[in-house]
Amino acid sequence: PRSVTYENGKVKLIDQRLLPREFKVIELMTIEEVARAIVTMQVRGAPAIGAAVAFGLALYAETTKAKTKDEFFDGFYETYERLKNTRPTAVNLFWALNRVKKLVEEHRENSLDKIKHLIVEEAQKIADEDVEANLRMGHYGAEVLPEGNVLTHCNAGSLATVHLGTVGAVLRVMHKEGTLKLLWVDETRPVLQGARLSAWEYHYDGIPLKIISDNMAGFVMQQGKVDAIIVGADRIVANGDFANKIGTYTLAVLAKEHGIPFFTVAPLSTIDMSLKSGKEIPIEERAKEEVLTCGGCKIAPDVDVYNPAFDVTPHKYLTGIITDRGVVYPPFERNLKRLFKRE
Amino acid sequence: PRSVTYENGKVKLIDQRLLPREFKVIELMTIEEVARAIVTMQVRGAPAIGAAVAFGLALYAETTKAKTKDEFFDGFYETYERLKNTRPTAVNLFWALNRVKKLVEEHRENSLDKIKHLIVEEAQKIADEDVEANLRMGHYGAEVLPEGNVLTHCNAGSLATVHLGTVGAVLRVMHKEGTLKLLWVDETRPVLQGARLSAWEYHYDGIPLKIISDNMAGFVMQQGKVDAIIVGADRIVANGDFANKIGTYTLAVLAKEHGIPFFTVAPLSTIDMSLKSGKEIPIEERAKEEVLTCGGCKIAPDVDVYNPAFDVTPHKYLTGIITDRGVVYPPFERNLKRLFKRE
Repeated sequence: PRSVTYENGKVKLIDQRLLPREFKVIELMTIEEVARAIVTMQVRGAPAIGAAVAFGLALYAETTKAKTKDEFFDGFYETYERLKNTRPTAVNLFWALNRVKKLVEEHRENSLDKIKHLIVEEAQKIADEDVEANLRMGHYGAEVLPEGNVLTHCNAGSLATVHLGTVGAVLRVMHKEGTLKLLWVDETRPVLQGARLSAWEYHYDGIPLKIISDNMAGFVMQQGKVDAIIVGADRIVANGDFANKIGTYTLAVLAKEHGIPFFTVAPLSTIDMSLKSGKEIPIEERAKEEVLTCGGCKIAPDVDVYNPAFDVTPHKYLTGIITDRGVVYPPFERNLKRLFKRE
Repeated sequence: PRSVTYENGKVKLIDQRLLPREFKVIELMTIEEVARAIVTMQVRGAPAIGAAVAFGLALYAETTKAKTKDEFFDGFYETYERLKNTRPTAVNLFWALNRVKKLVEEHRENSLDKIKHLIVEEAQKIADEDVEANLRMGHYGAEVLPEGNVLTHCNAGSLATVHLGTVGAVLRVMHKEGTLKLLWVDETRPVLQGARLSAWEYHYDGIPLKIISDNMAGFVMQQGKVDAIIVGADRIVANGDFANKIGTYTLAVLAKEHGIPFFTVAPLSTIDMSLKSGKEIPIEERAKEEVLTCGGCKIAPDVDVYNPAFDVTPHKYLTGIITDRGVVYPPFERNLKRLFKRE
């Protein structure tokens, strides 16, 4: 099923905080509920967040009590701002909000009913396009990844997108084609998106896998048991640097040391050509409780922690970027620019 | 207090599985209890295990009902074998057992009472020497480490030894001398010796520290916030390769990539000159439950895992080995040989 859907004034999400203990679809009926779901990571994953905020705007359009266009637009911008101020790193959130905002502003002269209709339609299109983009990435990725054992970090699977996943689509196509021997799943502390979410959804689909704690990745590579690494991205910038779940940079350094191909997979909506280098990407720091607990259990005395949710991997560590418009290789700055010109 | 002591037929240990929730000293009165405490990691850390098995032999000597020397020696070898077959990687265990065994065999012709007395005395000596060795390592280490932020992995502190620690002694001397600005504590999944034990004992001593999850280490180094890395060792071999808690190898690769000094700290009893290269060190694999749970909470669906307890870091990544007889630098093969000749 899709991870994020919208119907008649309700945003429906698989609550990712409860997995793998419980599979539960929650229904959000206010903008505040949608915003809280993003902040608390009931929905997470850059493309899934993008769809969630687009549906948040649709929810506003279909439930607002605004009677005049002015009232409607005031509420629209308020909603836009509330959703925008949920999480800072993944760019799909801003991309989706701005795509709907732009459309609305282009149609400002239309009737209120028409504008509302356009918003709902556009949000649905954003979600549908995400699924199609994943399918294309799956095939592009499976073509360039070597046969053998693949290691992934965090969850860039079906749960992180509307459906199938970015990394998830690549793994599913490889599995179908018989080129994926074993999937190494990094548990991905502190929030355990690997152990909780990736292991759950890929095991469900019959992909052979083993969970390791994050600090085992180097040893597994040293033993020659990893043929490729693929991870998702929360924001890729113009020179190819990219932000992704904390721990990605460490994997990139290990991949280089062992000569292992290292790919990121993301749709064009994750690429932010307005930033020149990864140093400009804002990195979210989250609550200390995430580090001091694990899966609900307290694991440490109450001392200081550092808890960056993401890190930035410089482009020099990347073998290629698998997008929904093909695979981009170095030099990334030139080739990403070309990709967007072709669009 | 000391982590491992012996008195009147009782081996006393701080139960490290309960920390930091509960500080409890347990009293072991049979060899089987001592063996189980090692297997279940109620006592862990290479030098602490060494002292624990030596005290196990003392416990045998003082509690055996053997009436003849033949009976006594049969029981002694049985005890020796039982304690030997607890954990395979840390060499201090074998070193301590063999040291007592050798002494006993040299005094085979003495009276039974004399032999028993010698065993208890030798076990006590092993424990006392460990504390003295740590003090010396503390001063040697503090002399060569740069002033600033230090990162450590697992626990090579007071709890991992009889007292003070290997890494622990270095950190304590640095803290006293004012050269330790901040200690980064890797949480060290799956058993969390960093978050549970290191954070607890160093925070207790007033050392400023921050816990990070293991996968954050690379990002912290990339930001220039780590000036040196020191870790313990479970076995160092003749060419300088060494086994230590899983995750150490990943830190070594990251240290190299960022030009950060990388030291291991261990007494001579941790150095195994009988093995030529790290490839010969047996690596213990532990139960899958350690990876599927965290601090007592279930965190993943019931899928396959890989759970090596240690990894091997090739000597090329090492800046130096801080021992109780001084700091050894490359070429390690030649300089370790010299160190043992001097002894």
